[in-house]
Amino acid sequence: MTDPLEHIKPAVRAMKAYTLTPHTYRYKMNQNENPLGYPPELKEQVMARILEQDWARYPDFDLVELTEALAGHLGVSPTQVLVGNGSNEIIYNTMAVTLRDGDSVVIPIPTFSVYKLVATVMGATVREPVMRPDTLFALPTDEVIQQAHEHQARLVVLCTPNNPTGRSVPIEQVRCICRAVDSLVLIDEAYQEFSSQNLLGLVAEFPNVILLRTFSKAMALGGMRVGYCVTNEALAREIHKGKLPYALNAFSEAAAVVALQNMPLFQAEVAQILYERDRLYAKLETLRFAHPIPSDANFIIARFDGFTPQQVFQHLLERGILVRDISSNVGLGEYLRLSVGAPQENDALIEALRELV
Amino acid sequence: MTDPLEHIKPAVRAMKAYTLTPHTYRYKMNQNENPLGYPPELKEQVMARILEQDWARYPDFDLVELTEALAGHLGVSPTQVLVGNGSNEIIYNTMAVTLRDGDSVVIPIPTFSVYKLVATVMGATVREPVMRPDTLFALPTDEVIQQAHEHQARLVVLCTPNNPTGRSVPIEQVRCICRAVDSLVLIDEAYQEFSSQNLLGLVAEFPNVILLRTFSKAMALGGMRVGYCVTNEALAREIHKGKLPYALNAFSEAAAVVALQNMPLFQAEVAQILYERDRLYAKLETLRFAHPIPSDANFIIARFDGFTPQQVFQHLLERGILVRDISSNVGLGEYLRLSVGAPQENDALIEALRELV
Repeated sequence: MTDPLEHIKPAVRAMKAYTLTPHTYRYKMNQNENPLGYPPELKEQVMARILEQDWARYPDFDLVELTEALAGHLGVSPTQVLVGNGSNEIIYNTMAVTLRDGDSVVIPIPTFSVYKLVATVMGATVREPVMRPDTLFALPTDEVIQQAHEHQARLVVLCTPNNPTGRSVPIEQVRCICRAVDSLVLIDEAYQEFSSQNLLGLVAEFPNVILLRTFSKAMALGGMRVGYCVTNEALAREIHKGKLPYALNAFSEAAAVVALQNMPLFQAEVAQILYERDRLYAKLETLRFAHPIPSDANFIIARFDGFTPQQVFQHLLERGILVRDISSNVGLGEYLRLSVGAPQENDALIEALRELV
Repeated sequence: MTDPLEHIKPAVRAMKAYTLTPHTYRYKMNQNENPLGYPPELKEQVMARILEQDWARYPDFDLVELTEALAGHLGVSPTQVLVGNGSNEIIYNTMAVTLRDGDSVVIPIPTFSVYKLVATVMGATVREPVMRPDTLFALPTDEVIQQAHEHQARLVVLCTPNNPTGRSVPIEQVRCICRAVDSLVLIDEAYQEFSSQNLLGLVAEFPNVILLRTFSKAMALGGMRVGYCVTNEALAREIHKGKLPYALNAFSEAAAVVALQNMPLFQAEVAQILYERDRLYAKLETLRFAHPIPSDANFIIARFDGFTPQQVFQHLLERGILVRDISSNVGLGEYLRLSVGAPQENDALIEALRELV
């Protein structure tokens, strides 16, 4: 009998599983979540909705209420919006309907690891132009275009603002790529609400753009797994065929709908987080040994003279502050990523860093 | 510029989207849900858990509480259990890590449509031995084995009890297949709790078995999307690599954990549903024009002398009863599927059928 493992794709067998080491902490500043949380008064509304539902019944097949609320919020047609179990799921669906063994995908690095994970599972070859520290991790536009052409890439993935660098790709550069390549362009704007730009308009400008957004960051629903994409109707119809029925549970749909009905509360939270981001950045700059990189998102990467990232990570963890060690990423060997927290968390972080020297 | 749609796999472009026509109804007997519902006292427990959580924070990375509760419930190691956003997601992950363009999958039909949908998205060729009315939709074991060999199938999918026929594959036949084929065998036991057999032991007997279970049916959580697989540790590790991080939201995890802590409540519901199934079957038999097929699940298929399935469907819908028209399936051209409902729903169904003649 054949070894059952031989039915697993070789590229998958060669992969390392995506893991996360659990830590004990007081302040969680490692996953770019909204530190101010889902507003308590909205929680009550969601709970009331959930309580009156029959949990045994399948969710609405077409997620009409959430899809229409999103379409209204974005000013697009509901037929252009697909909701997923986190935007991760839309990445999975999009890659499943496009990538065959040996196809190429261009993914500039360092970036969010899920793109490469899914592309590899789908059998694709990942081409990785590098964003380098000496340009403050700017996107090498020409190289992206050149690699897309050279490898006839099916997909180019752009994360902007980029995780983990916090850097945005200026809209003119994104336009330039969308215009120049023959590929689909998957733009992940998970952190858009914290950014100085908004790429939604590119969906109407270019027929090859798929834009991803999420409720996991600014919308304070990281625990509930709601994401979506906006694209043109023709592409939405095709990606939809790669989606599983009933991808979103009824709880999460309710939490997302209630959030959309109360946008000013989240806009106020975003304003406060941006204020804190700028305050945290300024405080980091006052520490002479800390070198933060300007960020367009709700996190900041920084390196620390005289200390390895592991030393700083450990020092902070001993003081109950959990940040993200991103030093295994190309070009980020000296860096840690600090999620912007609530005011007292950011104060504690700065205080703990001061104690380093 | 290339037409962006040319980046979509041809097999996907040729697919019809999975759709469901919405209907207005009083009694919902079309999706094999648990008609007795998630017990209200457990709802309160789940709500209390959810209320104290910070929704902005990502769920537990390894879903430790739910995975360990499941492992305990099943008597297996937590390393053998993978939880998904419905068992659909585990089907997607399993097919993503195994199937490449042109690979074959054996899927006996008529059966649950998601297997073929996902296999097609992954580029596989689906081989479909037919379960025929003249054998009461028995599995043609020899043909399954022969096709698996002939096409060097990576996967054989067995749904037992089978949706939509309600027929189980006797465990000795399943054993025979697991032993004879060189393929992985994905066994979907979504309806196991209603069945006279339990195939969990096959996971220890055969190194090629992946067993799927769900909280969507007997466990009354169709709205919450929780499913899982049990397999050996080596296969679990590989399928895990094809899973997205944070596949399950924190709400649904809480609802599943609380359910597992209160199994007797669900066992009592299952007993009542089985009583109702047998009562409904007996009542159908008393209608001389109705021909139900004996079922090992919580639904019954039947044909009706002198009426097309569409006529019966429409007649029932006019009386507020929504059932499932399954007549587009191979071999089921004359059949409707009736989910077992609460006592008054089953009474209403029988009464409405009586009014047909």
